Amino acid sequence: MGTAQAQVWLGDQRFQLSELALPELADGEVLVRMTTATICGSDRHTVSGRRPGACPSILGHEGVGTVVTSRRPGIAPGQRVVFSVTSTCGRCRNCARGLSAKCEEVLKAGHEHVEGAWPLSGTYASHIHLRAGQAAEIVPDSIPDAVASTAGCAVATVMAVLERAGDLVGRTVLVNGVGMLGMVALAAVRAGGAGTIIACDPSPVSRDLARPLADEVVAPGDDHLVDVALEFSGVAQGADACIRSLDLGGVAVLAGTVAPVPDVSVDPEWVVRGWRTITGVHNYEPRHLREAVGFLDCEGDQLPWDRILDGPISLAELPAAFASPSGALRTVVALDS
Amino acid sequence: MGTAQAQVWLGDQRFQLSELALPELADGEVLVRMTTATICGSDRHTVSGRRPGACPSILGHEGVGTVVTSRRPGIAPGQRVVFSVTSTCGRCRNCARGLSAKCEEVLKAGHEHVEGAWPLSGTYASHIHLRAGQAAEIVPDSIPDAVASTAGCAVATVMAVLERAGDLVGRTVLVNGVGMLGMVALAAVRAGGAGTIIACDPSPVSRDLARPLADEVVAPGDDHLVDVALEFSGVAQGADACIRSLDLGGVAVLAGTVAPVPDVSVDPEWVVRGWRTITGVHNYEPRHLREAVGFLDCEGDQLPWDRILDGPISLAELPAAFASPSGALRTVVALDS
Repeated sequence: MGTAQAQVWLGDQRFQLSELALPELADGEVLVRMTTATICGSDRHTVSGRRPGACPSILGHEGVGTVVTSRRPGIAPGQRVVFSVTSTCGRCRNCARGLSAKCEEVLKAGHEHVEGAWPLSGTYASHIHLRAGQAAEIVPDSIPDAVASTAGCAVATVMAVLERAGDLVGRTVLVNGVGMLGMVALAAVRAGGAGTIIACDPSPVSRDLARPLADEVVAPGDDHLVDVALEFSGVAQGADACIRSLDLGGVAVLAGTVAPVPDVSVDPEWVVRGWRTITGVHNYEPRHLREAVGFLDCEGDQLPWDRILDGPISLAELPAAFASPSGALRTVVALDS
Repeated sequence: MGTAQAQVWLGDQRFQLSELALPELADGEVLVRMTTATICGSDRHTVSGRRPGACPSILGHEGVGTVVTSRRPGIAPGQRVVFSVTSTCGRCRNCARGLSAKCEEVLKAGHEHVEGAWPLSGTYASHIHLRAGQAAEIVPDSIPDAVASTAGCAVATVMAVLERAGDLVGRTVLVNGVGMLGMVALAAVRAGGAGTIIACDPSPVSRDLARPLADEVVAPGDDHLVDVALEFSGVAQGADACIRSLDLGGVAVLAGTVAPVPDVSVDPEWVVRGWRTITGVHNYEPRHLREAVGFLDCEGDQLPWDRILDGPISLAELPAAFASPSGALRTVVALDS
């Protein structure tokens, strides 16, 4: 059977490089030899204690690898694949109505206990075990490993956000919060035909990073009237600013506020008379992973990856990368060395 | 040229039965001999002083009549027509992006000064002058005059609301506020395939009216979790209740709050994690008038018109109908006698 090598998170800043048995695959499952993972900010929140997480567990939900064994039609050994964060049942009420991200039996890559039903769920490991209810997409050769790795969380979530935003052609679009998702969104709204693109972030470093992708770069408080506002900052003031920025017919898509924040206040008359919309997105559906790969294939080179990514680091260096964040949007973990 | 007879509103509860010159038609314009009007609640708000309105003016924006003269291709003398509340320019930024309800040069039927550019704008008259930028739809014989009259405001607005609500098949739908729009919405969501329909209103009379069209009839405070919440009550508590009722993936369409109300508070994390949507609709687009006529043709007989309508009254009796509201959702004004 063989074994996988993984960094098992033990709580706080503690990790342990461990050997875990490779699984026997059931129908629909796939075993992937990881080549690259990227460290998503939510893992940093888990390790810093700002977000609860199963423990001990293999973290990491962004990654790319090569299929070793497959019991899924359409996925064959040797293919390079990315995969969904969520493994869903396909049968519950939420799956049935197209909201599989909210599956009542959802399990999540990089979120499961190593002694539970899905030990090899994370990407900080030599192998990942893809479940039958977990979407996987073959990656074209044009996309480098480190870039492809971001598809499964950051890029796919942005695709879900853009679906909710609707038609962008000629629209004025605000991207609030220039982290990894904000950067992808800036490139994606340009590809979607947006007229004027405004990036907003309190950090001068982030604003500088956004500058080549935006028509205007502003700090919070420098308000504009927009057709579409995409919120990735995760703070209540960001949600509030996005809502208040809406012109007639405007749509605010909130995606950042995945932790408790204060309420924002909304004027019902203003919503009605202005045909305004406030909507939320959390995680994504399988179609958005497919779109993410398509986006990276066609438009991925619009992003300044040399400034977005740092590393690569080895799996052995992962604990140090959590202990001393580099400040890059994504640190690349090379797993095939 | 001839003249039209109209009830000209002079402010407060005062009206004057007056003769006005019939217009010479420009390209795209239509002269209609009114047969029936219905009194919309917003006219009552204007007359009671709760809503500002051009004065003196001919009120009334719901009505049906027969074409006398037409300079619009596709509309011919003798045809029975209903028409849009809004007359739009078709050229401004809002018209160009499909939000003609918010046309920068919008004029509104039943809202224009009698000494301005559009004296014969209202339906409380023997004739209405349809402008080139005002949608008109031919009415099938199956729809009685008094029923057809409601198409141009109540029914078309509900069609716009349902478009925003999205797919209704199998969904649990809350209709909050059982006035004219709420009653139409109850019938329309049933026709749209809704699973469970809940009607909410503080008035026992309204709840009784709703009962045959709803699966469940409740008073405010009797909360349910729903997929779609349609708000017609116009009060902040109604908007708040609709928002809070939303299940995962739920959509609240606010349409009632067209006057100042207190803000409601919204939790951004709850919006994001639940993929929830809050959106607003005010007036409607030309396609919704077409849909309104189609709805009344196919599904109009689902509504208890004998309980919704009262009258008919004559044009001479209009001031008395404003002074002493009957309590019916719509009072019919017969204009062809």
